[in-house]
Amino acid sequence: MNQKENHKNQIFEALSDRLERAMAYQTALTLLEWDNETLAPVQAGALTSRVQGTLSAAYQEVMTSSEVKLLISQCEKQPDLSRVERDIVREAKEDVEKLDCIPPEEYRAFQELVSESTRIWVKAKKEQDFSAFAPTLQKIISYQKKFAGYRAKDGQKLYDVMLDDYEKDFNMEKLDAFFQCLKKELVPLLKQITESRVRVDDAFLTGDYPEEKQRKLAEYMASYVGFDFEKGVLATSAHPFTTNLHNRDVRITTHYQDRVDSSLFSVIHEAGHGIYEQGIADELTQTPVGQGASMGMHESQSRFFENIIGRNEAFWVPVYGTLKDLFPDQLRGVGREMFVRAINKVEPGLIRTEADELTYSLHVLVRYELEKQLIEEDLDVEKLPELWADKYEEYLGVRPDHVAEGVLQDIHWAQGSFGYFPSYALGSAFGAQIYACMKREMDFDKLLEDGKIDVIREYLREHIHQHGKLKTSRQLIRDMTGEDFNPQYYVDYLKEKYGKLYQLEG
Amino acid sequence: MNQKENHKNQIFEALSDRLERAMAYQTALTLLEWDNETLAPVQAGALTSRVQGTLSAAYQEVMTSSEVKLLISQCEKQPDLSRVERDIVREAKEDVEKLDCIPPEEYRAFQELVSESTRIWVKAKKEQDFSAFAPTLQKIISYQKKFAGYRAKDGQKLYDVMLDDYEKDFNMEKLDAFFQCLKKELVPLLKQITESRVRVDDAFLTGDYPEEKQRKLAEYMASYVGFDFEKGVLATSAHPFTTNLHNRDVRITTHYQDRVDSSLFSVIHEAGHGIYEQGIADELTQTPVGQGASMGMHESQSRFFENIIGRNEAFWVPVYGTLKDLFPDQLRGVGREMFVRAINKVEPGLIRTEADELTYSLHVLVRYELEKQLIEEDLDVEKLPELWADKYEEYLGVRPDHVAEGVLQDIHWAQGSFGYFPSYALGSAFGAQIYACMKREMDFDKLLEDGKIDVIREYLREHIHQHGKLKTSRQLIRDMTGEDFNPQYYVDYLKEKYGKLYQLEG
Repeated sequence: MNQKENHKNQIFEALSDRLERAMAYQTALTLLEWDNETLAPVQAGALTSRVQGTLSAAYQEVMTSSEVKLLISQCEKQPDLSRVERDIVREAKEDVEKLDCIPPEEYRAFQELVSESTRIWVKAKKEQDFSAFAPTLQKIISYQKKFAGYRAKDGQKLYDVMLDDYEKDFNMEKLDAFFQCLKKELVPLLKQITESRVRVDDAFLTGDYPEEKQRKLAEYMASYVGFDFEKGVLATSAHPFTTNLHNRDVRITTHYQDRVDSSLFSVIHEAGHGIYEQGIADELTQTPVGQGASMGMHESQSRFFENIIGRNEAFWVPVYGTLKDLFPDQLRGVGREMFVRAINKVEPGLIRTEADELTYSLHVLVRYELEKQLIEEDLDVEKLPELWADKYEEYLGVRPDHVAEGVLQDIHWAQGSFGYFPSYALGSAFGAQIYACMKREMDFDKLLEDGKIDVIREYLREHIHQHGKLKTSRQLIRDMTGEDFNPQYYVDYLKEKYGKLYQLEG
Repeated sequence: MNQKENHKNQIFEALSDRLERAMAYQTALTLLEWDNETLAPVQAGALTSRVQGTLSAAYQEVMTSSEVKLLISQCEKQPDLSRVERDIVREAKEDVEKLDCIPPEEYRAFQELVSESTRIWVKAKKEQDFSAFAPTLQKIISYQKKFAGYRAKDGQKLYDVMLDDYEKDFNMEKLDAFFQCLKKELVPLLKQITESRVRVDDAFLTGDYPEEKQRKLAEYMASYVGFDFEKGVLATSAHPFTTNLHNRDVRITTHYQDRVDSSLFSVIHEAGHGIYEQGIADELTQTPVGQGASMGMHESQSRFFENIIGRNEAFWVPVYGTLKDLFPDQLRGVGREMFVRAINKVEPGLIRTEADELTYSLHVLVRYELEKQLIEEDLDVEKLPELWADKYEEYLGVRPDHVAEGVLQDIHWAQGSFGYFPSYALGSAFGAQIYACMKREMDFDKLLEDGKIDVIREYLREHIHQHGKLKTSRQLIRDMTGEDFNPQYYVDYLKEKYGKLYQLEG
């Protein structure tokens, strides 16, 4: 090693050392949050929040220290960093810039507002009282717009700044085109389906499915699709989610309800997220590029496992017997084909998290349009409930009776997340494009029928998972499929699948 | 508020702020360790260890920073600090001194040795091969002696430095007298019991006790003795333990075995630890004085709940029916009296953690004598297995066949803990003295018979738990009982209880 290389390494090593400390705080915060959702006693809240606040401040302090900034700028001048090292420096710099441009006292006030606002939202939702939440929501929006203003570059629009946090390269211009395409194609498709004479029976999915057996099914299914229990755990929480300390400790949750397919598919969905995180390369984990590429790409994987794999008839060929063995009485007289039809039933509803595969993106469309208006057009928050209801009626043909099943159903805005929702729809579209590409490379259905999910998973790991944040979603898709992102694959996939199920005329 | 008070507060507040950060790191470390013992996937180890190492270093860095040292010395000069504030400053100063007098590179080397040594100990124990562990043990002892040397004040002996970490005011001189008293009284008592003609049948305690029902019993019992599940949780781990994030989040574990009384009493024992931590005053938690007074006082509470409450016949009057309802077949024909005799059976054995109430302290005696020799007399570690076996034979009348049930049974030395063991015996003796005092103040047995454990618990909370580390064990005992610590209460308690059970002549 010559002297110059030695010098370079020392600077990068010094930066890595500070980043490792910051990551340790993040890991601790992740565990505290996981624990809070799955186990912590009810009275722990206030004191544990203080601990979280302290760790959060410690993270911010390290990341915005003059030492880290100096090391980053020195690293940028090193000509001989490896590709991964350069990406770590780039990502760290972005993280620092995000934290650094917001005055600490404003950031703290915002954090306090947000921790308060979740409580207010819970109460308002319970009491179906939007006006109790509206002033808080207005404050959150004001803060987020102010923060986005600090961060906006070269006349960038505020909502574009927010969108960029969740999915790079997808600003309003691109998303308008994307959602326009979905609206144009899916709203009429849904209308055709609801007007079709085909009726799908899914009554048997609801019933006496004992929790203990559902738990067994959940463990079996997570493992079957490839979630590695040597590097992960499954627990129970009010709302299913995935989190991870690093690539050897990935955690998924589910909840057990009367509808057996609710936990079943939420487990496969979270396992998809988990498999992504378990597949990230060892050299990346616990660095700033050691997570999934974006929220959209993450959703692409969870929804790929849930829908493209899990709701595929071929998937059930080798495993439907296991399900029948677990629930012989509940599924008496229900054949595999009948089961697969039931789990693919299209039924426009009011609640996003319970939506079927086809209508899901229309729920997201409503939120995207409203977020845009809130951020870019100063929409009065008081008008949200009515606008929400109107859009549901227009796109899905259903209208909420009250705000708990309308505008107050999601926690995102109460947590200060604006720009997150589009990821859900983008993820579904990414997944469909990836699926189209994979079908050219392999006999997808045959692999499912033969229970060889490992081949599919390995392909996804090689082309997506292992790269962490080294590539953006767009780059991943381009490198994998040879094409730029194209939402038509998604529309075609839905049209073909549901056209067949509901015997629509092509 | 005058200017002077204002000034005082600012300095103390500044120190508190730094201490809060240090405590946040400790809380995160506690949660990581809890998680590791109860849930984390098997492959998480190496990466999570790095996170722990980083947080541990961050803790040390804050505590030994020149800023904290300066603030402590400034606080010491403030004339108007409250009692609690002065104690926080004193305790923080002690923590800083402990961390500060060991060169960081030696401390790190020792931490690495200890994390390695646990692995070596596990393997050596499994293979019943002491020689595989001996060199590591020798290194650990050398480090600990060196560290104690750095910390020794005014010609203090090395083992006294170590003992002081776990129980202030109890140096070798005091412990020699204590253990001498136990040896003189308990060894002959045990001989009388093993030679008595009374036979206690406890065969029914072992059998088909389904884990699910044992779990129900554990939850019921923890709650019955007063562990508050709004401020705590119960989980499963290989070895039962208690830990806490703060006084509103206290965690206990148990394990389920074929012997129903194993989990039953380990849960009551850990609940005793947990009730202590839940009882600590709100103003103390998350400060350096916010834990139990000492290891000995902690054991006094856990063993008080386990033995003085839990193995008391009066305790079972209101709850034996619940036990019978849970296990009607397993306990068929077993009356309450027979059950209480069984759970108090004396049977000298080789394993400390499985020892009955009477022989328990003799297990500790063996360890105390050997630790003293190792630290103060340079005992060759190679001689430990033989000496261990000789002492067991002399005091307990049993001799191990191999080192796994002999000198390798405990993890403490592998973890670098010397001076910890005496706490177990001291705790039992503290408990007996507290019990004697309480019996003068209240009709203890009547309260148990009436299921009024809350009265007993509240008394302990008022006199012990709430004070945290504001008083030493000796002070607590003196303030509570009006007397200095006196081991005779313990001996008398055991003599009376077991003399009656085994019909010994007084």
